[in-house]
Amino acid sequence: MRIDGREPMQLRPIHIETNYLMHPEGSVLISVGNTKVICAASIEDRVPPFMRGEGKGWITAEYSMLPRATETRNIRESSKGKVSGRTMEIQRLIGRALRAVVDLGTIGERTVWIDCDVIQADGGTRTASITGAFVAMSLALNSLAEKKSLARFPIIDYLAATSVGILKDNQTVLDLNYAEDSKAQVDMNVVMTGSGEFVELQGTGEESTFSYEQLQGLLQAAQGGLVELFEYQKIALGAEIMKKIEERRKK
Amino acid sequence: MRIDGREPMQLRPIHIETNYLMHPEGSVLISVGNTKVICAASIEDRVPPFMRGEGKGWITAEYSMLPRATETRNIRESSKGKVSGRTMEIQRLIGRALRAVVDLGTIGERTVWIDCDVIQADGGTRTASITGAFVAMSLALNSLAEKKSLARFPIIDYLAATSVGILKDNQTVLDLNYAEDSKAQVDMNVVMTGSGEFVELQGTGEESTFSYEQLQGLLQAAQGGLVELFEYQKIALGAEIMKKIEERRKK
Amino acid sequence: MRIDGREPMQLRPIHIETNYLMHPEGSVLISVGNTKVICAASIEDRVPPFMRGEGKGWITAEYSMLPRATETRNIRESSKGKVSGRTMEIQRLIGRALRAVVDLGTIGERTVWIDCDVIQADGGTRTASITGAFVAMSLALNSLAEKKSLARFPIIDYLAATSVGILKDNQTVLDLNYAEDSKAQVDMNVVMTGSGEFVELQGTGEESTFSYEQLQGLLQAAQGGLVELFEYQKIALGAEIMKKIEERRKK
Amino acid sequence: MRIDGREPMQLRPIHIETNYLMHPEGSVLISVGNTKVICAASIEDRVPPFMRGEGKGWITAEYSMLPRATETRNIRESSKGKVSGRTMEIQRLIGRALRAVVDLGTIGERTVWIDCDVIQADGGTRTASITGAFVAMSLALNSLAEKKSLARFPIIDYLAATSVGILKDNQTVLDLNYAEDSKAQVDMNVVMTGSGEFVELQGTGEESTFSYEQLQGLLQAAQGGLVELFEYQKIALGAEIMKKIEERRKK
Amino acid sequence: MRIDGREPMQLRPIHIETNYLMHPEGSVLISVGNTKVICAASIEDRVPPFMRGEGKGWITAEYSMLPRATETRNIRESSKGKVSGRTMEIQRLIGRALRAVVDLGTIGERTVWIDCDVIQADGGTRTASITGAFVAMSLALNSLAEKKSLARFPIIDYLAATSVGILKDNQTVLDLNYAEDSKAQVDMNVVMTGSGEFVELQGTGEESTFSYEQLQGLLQAAQGGLVELFEYQKIALGAEIMKKIEERRKK
Amino acid sequence: MRIDGREPMQLRPIHIETNYLMHPEGSVLISVGNTKVICAASIEDRVPPFMRGEGKGWITAEYSMLPRATETRNIRESSKGKVSGRTMEIQRLIGRALRAVVDLGTIGERTVWIDCDVIQADGGTRTASITGAFVAMSLALNSLAEKKSLARFPIIDYLAATSVGILKDNQTVLDLNYAEDSKAQVDMNVVMTGSGEFVELQGTGEESTFSYEQLQGLLQAAQGGLVELFEYQKIALGAEIMKKIEERRKK
Repeated sequence: MRIDGREPMQLRPIHIETNYLMHPEGSVLISVGNTKVICAASIEDRVPPFMRGEGKGWITAEYSMLPRATETRNIRESSKGKVSGRTMEIQRLIGRALRAVVDLGTIGERTVWIDCDVIQADGGTRTASITGAFVAMSLALNSLAEKKSLARFPIIDYLAATSVGILKDNQTVLDLNYAEDSKAQVDMNVVMTGSGEFVELQGTGEESTFSYEQLQGLLQAAQGGLVELFEYQKIALGAEIMKKIEERRKK
Repeated sequence: MRIDGREPMQLRPIHIETNYLMHPEGSVLISVGNTKVICAASIEDRVPPFMRGEGKGWITAEYSMLPRATETRNIRESSKGKVSGRTMEIQRLIGRALRAVVDLGTIGERTVWIDCDVIQADGGTRTASITGAFVAMSLALNSLAEKKSLARFPIIDYLAATSVGILKDNQTVLDLNYAEDSKAQVDMNVVMTGSGEFVELQGTGEESTFSYEQLQGLLQAAQGGLVELFEYQKIALGAEIMKKIEERRKK
Repeated sequence: MRIDGREPMQLRPIHIETNYLMHPEGSVLISVGNTKVICAASIEDRVPPFMRGEGKGWITAEYSMLPRATETRNIRESSKGKVSGRTMEIQRLIGRALRAVVDLGTIGERTVWIDCDVIQADGGTRTASITGAFVAMSLALNSLAEKKSLARFPIIDYLAATSVGILKDNQTVLDLNYAEDSKAQVDMNVVMTGSGEFVELQGTGEESTFSYEQLQGLLQAAQGGLVELFEYQKIALGAEIMKKIEERRKK
Repeated sequence: MRIDGREPMQLRPIHIETNYLMHPEGSVLISVGNTKVICAASIEDRVPPFMRGEGKGWITAEYSMLPRATETRNIRESSKGKVSGRTMEIQRLIGRALRAVVDLGTIGERTVWIDCDVIQADGGTRTASITGAFVAMSLALNSLAEKKSLARFPIIDYLAATSVGILKDNQTVLDLNYAEDSKAQVDMNVVMTGSGEFVELQGTGEESTFSYEQLQGLLQAAQGGLVELFEYQKIALGAEIMKKIEERRKK
Repeated sequence: MRIDGREPMQLRPIHIETNYLMHPEGSVLISVGNTKVICAASIEDRVPPFMRGEGKGWITAEYSMLPRATETRNIRESSKGKVSGRTMEIQRLIGRALRAVVDLGTIGERTVWIDCDVIQADGGTRTASITGAFVAMSLALNSLAEKKSLARFPIIDYLAATSVGILKDNQTVLDLNYAEDSKAQVDMNVVMTGSGEFVELQGTGEESTFSYEQLQGLLQAAQGGLVELFEYQKIALGAEIMKKIEERRKK
Repeated sequence: MRIDGREPMQLRPIHIETNYLMHPEGSVLISVGNTKVICAASIEDRVPPFMRGEGKGWITAEYSMLPRATETRNIRESSKGKVSGRTMEIQRLIGRALRAVVDLGTIGERTVWIDCDVIQADGGTRTASITGAFVAMSLALNSLAEKKSLARFPIIDYLAATSVGILKDNQTVLDLNYAEDSKAQVDMNVVMTGSGEFVELQGTGEESTFSYEQLQGLLQAAQGGLVELFEYQKIALGAEIMKKIEERRKK
């Protein structure tokens, strides 16, 4: 039994509240246990300089935590005047992951800006951000598709992320909370499509290492959690958008 | 009649949800119409260098907006690497205002950090921040008082803020939303104590000016709104804390 | 009687030396007692990006202190690599105030850059900056009007600023020096036009508050000082420019 | 056959020149084909603030490229005034990887600074950095062990890294050069110990995805290359240090 | 004859106004023709970290220009967030030059901060800064010597600087103004002691070169100007300080 | 006899390895004793904004040290977020010196970027950088001349640099290593053309001064060393490029 009473392969309670904000083209408040992230998707009618003239779109993400999302207050990156390495790693990961399930040619020279702002942190903020951002982005791109009648629906598959890890007692667990994460030997983030393909795999031994057999156990645990997460995303998006994604996925 | 159907002297709907976050010593989500701000109060057991050895506490505030709190996305200050002049003005104002109603000698060499993060903006974010921050700070200082049995309760009066303005048609209005604010001739923020004393008064003619008579009308409008805001704060804080503030106020 | 022997409602000695520098289109050295500020106005033949294509001009200000303008040396903002909140607040105030008395449509797509550099500080540097900057700007815009034969003279009224405050002994005083300012309970800056209209009003209780009656006393004190300051400005500008401003003011 | 004539599972030519620089406690110039990195290890007699008083050591890394290490000149990060997200990701990875094979308690409150400066880049700079940095660090820690007679030899296993990927034609290849890397569908970096345990696994679909079967092929390819790399490290370190590592590894 | 009517070996008019500011321990306003610099010397009772514990003092300088010191407005370095290479070169030069004529052991662990702020620029701002800074520093150190009764007077010689150059027509001239400087082939700054020894020599061919014979002519020209500058410094410092410097110089 | 056994007028061993890197248009690894610098020359087909439209080229230089080029590790300027004054001085010097021997009109609107990266430092890094950069630049401009058939060969003379100094025992020496440099009374860098003309002369008394006679001795010493350095450059460049430079030099 885990600290918070869960089974090893059990996710924390998931809630996805869509259209949480009035201004963005798409937005959600996602809760994974006590971890809460506001994900907003904004559409801008141009691409960054290095993409101009290619007729393709771009997706980029920014990630931040409120200073008191954490147990002790952390200093704002705007006050420090620079963004930490950890933040940069996370926002590069979110953007890269989302680009894997969007047909960028379909959306034309537009940028989808994803903002993931962690309101409350209890472990797994980057995977919650990806899972929530996929929904926010889908809402925004759906509204774009409706307004601009794109040639095809631009989202080609579902996308979600979760963490798995090996605790000090060698137990493999799914969806670590902060207390577990800070004591785990091995920590792995898995980003997967609705079709069960990997998009990103980041496994780290924390002053520790892991064997090929342990890796297999971790990947299996992740897959179990991700299948559930796709179901929450489908409910949040609703039947109409689900149908459009399924159609693109088949092809 | 105003854009959103209000009377000239009518506040927008106010909601104050206390203990919105699990980590901070005090926190609220305040809504003033569509303007929504998360206010968190954190207590740190030391003061900034310039205050050390005086045996007094300090209160300081930081203010930020989520990139998509606004109609068009604004660039994060952490990405720009510097905090704008507007942000600095607002956070200096919030800190200064709160310090006027706290007996800093009572709390010892501690800092109260106030974080006001605007989730959604529709005008009046700085005044909503002050009104919400007062409640978050009161919760935090009350919990400090309970744990550390301070010599006296440190809060000596209520504190709230609102905006008033003169629209293009010369009408004086209370609590401007963004559409009104961006077209007003005169814009004034008033910070007041529960006893009706001014703490801060900032009136600005926007490429315009205002007369002494107009100033009197603006101040009267502000006072009407502030009396209501104090009632919302009292309900949010509850009878026990209210009683402690009233006791200190009498003296 | 005050520290420096003045009456409560007495300004410090005022000197305005025009054309203090050889390069700028307009410049002054203003002294308000021991406070000395060099104000320079530069005209640039374009406006910032957010104003382009509107056919209107813009006025913007920068403010700085020499490191040893103050009793103890303060670190240069260029060495710190960032501008302080206080500096930003002041330069935003100066620019906003000046824009209230200029017909921006008349000057076309040009920017007036105002530089206020405090050579020596003894309280009231922001109000001295506004009072001096108005004269420097008037000289620069007059020379522009003469060279480019603008459709109309662009300055529509005088503009000056002063500070008023309430000392610890509850006395209301005009034009506080540094020693008074650092011990005042209430500090208020008033920016007014030659016609007696308010442009900006910033009153602050310094860990203190003020009543409606005290506010009335402060405003009356300010008005007395401002009437005198307008006379100094008129002498500095000379009869010809005075006449042009008066003509615009009437309409 | 690959662009440069190699077999799919063939590494590029490896050279490790030890003690390349006169000042650092340990240094190498490592070449992996045309990729050349200077790795220097410096020992400092203190740890960062967050580690003080724990009696343990710390290992941290910095990574940089000369501006003309690449085909077109890239701007120096010192000129830009900030370190890119990519650089931060890489230096965090190098430090984390090295810490997995060092018994930090043995070295006391000391920091090992690893500097990886890419002189010439042709793909795989981060994995070459890790492989070279392990040798430089071993030399530095060996000299520390000799001078300070540490209780035990601090290095507990070998550590090397390589990249594997899936090209556009679905071929899985080992040790991608820049031309291959920029066109690969999937790119994976694998950091492994001499005992065959994973330390870090980072697989990324580049606007693409990969299946579980493909993952297995990638890991097998990586393992083949890593076994060879450990041999190059052993030759570079020499028999004496090899023996010390082997002894610690057994326990 | 030169642009401004001077002879080739003629300095521009020199004025040194001592005690120009009320706060610093020493200050001057120096004019060299139209070039005007405020030099302030501040004494701080500690030395920078790298000097602590040596029982010696330190002298450091900062240099800046007002934005409109020049013909076209230049952007403030505080707004740009960094100090230019030119500014750094100049402030390093000023500090190094002054340290050559001060017995740093005599002043104890104190720092003399020199601030040179160019109010108006017409060529030769760095040499005017050195010449003026020497006077400001002498006033400050004299007042320190009087208050703290130092073992010996700390200034061991006079110090001044001037520029010389070769114009396009091959004429060697002394003390170039901006118009001359911007068209000169060769530009040389010479810093010399009252005893005729060189402290610093910086000669530069501006997309041009110079022969050994030309160098000799330049040095002779500089020496002529410097002899005059020492006389202006002596008058500014007055008989008492002059006597103290002469006494130290003899030994 | 000197610390390292050299005669006072003896250079350290010089090696210039051309085409050290595969990507740049020209590159060398220059060793002057233990000082080692990689110099790379890159050609960009545009000039900086302030040069556009003049039909001329530009040459600019950047200089950096690896963190462990020095005896104790120095912090990277990219980590500090700013470039030091010393670095700026050096890079301005390198660029200025090289521009003196290039006919900028001949190369059209192109920029030559010079990167000098110090791999190992033992005194004289800026002069080694200039001497090496001249060779790298010559290789790059020769390859440009061959590809673009420029109207004339753009290099009009050789260029090298060395340091001379006066040690504590009053001995004048050539080419100081770090141990000598850090104890010298006077330090002078001399940049000269192959025709024996000065390009740059920077002499500094380090808390010391120097006489006219000493200056003459220093310049004579420098000239002796420079004559040798030109020979090393000629060998490195080879007969063909030598011939082209000689032809331009004659005219």
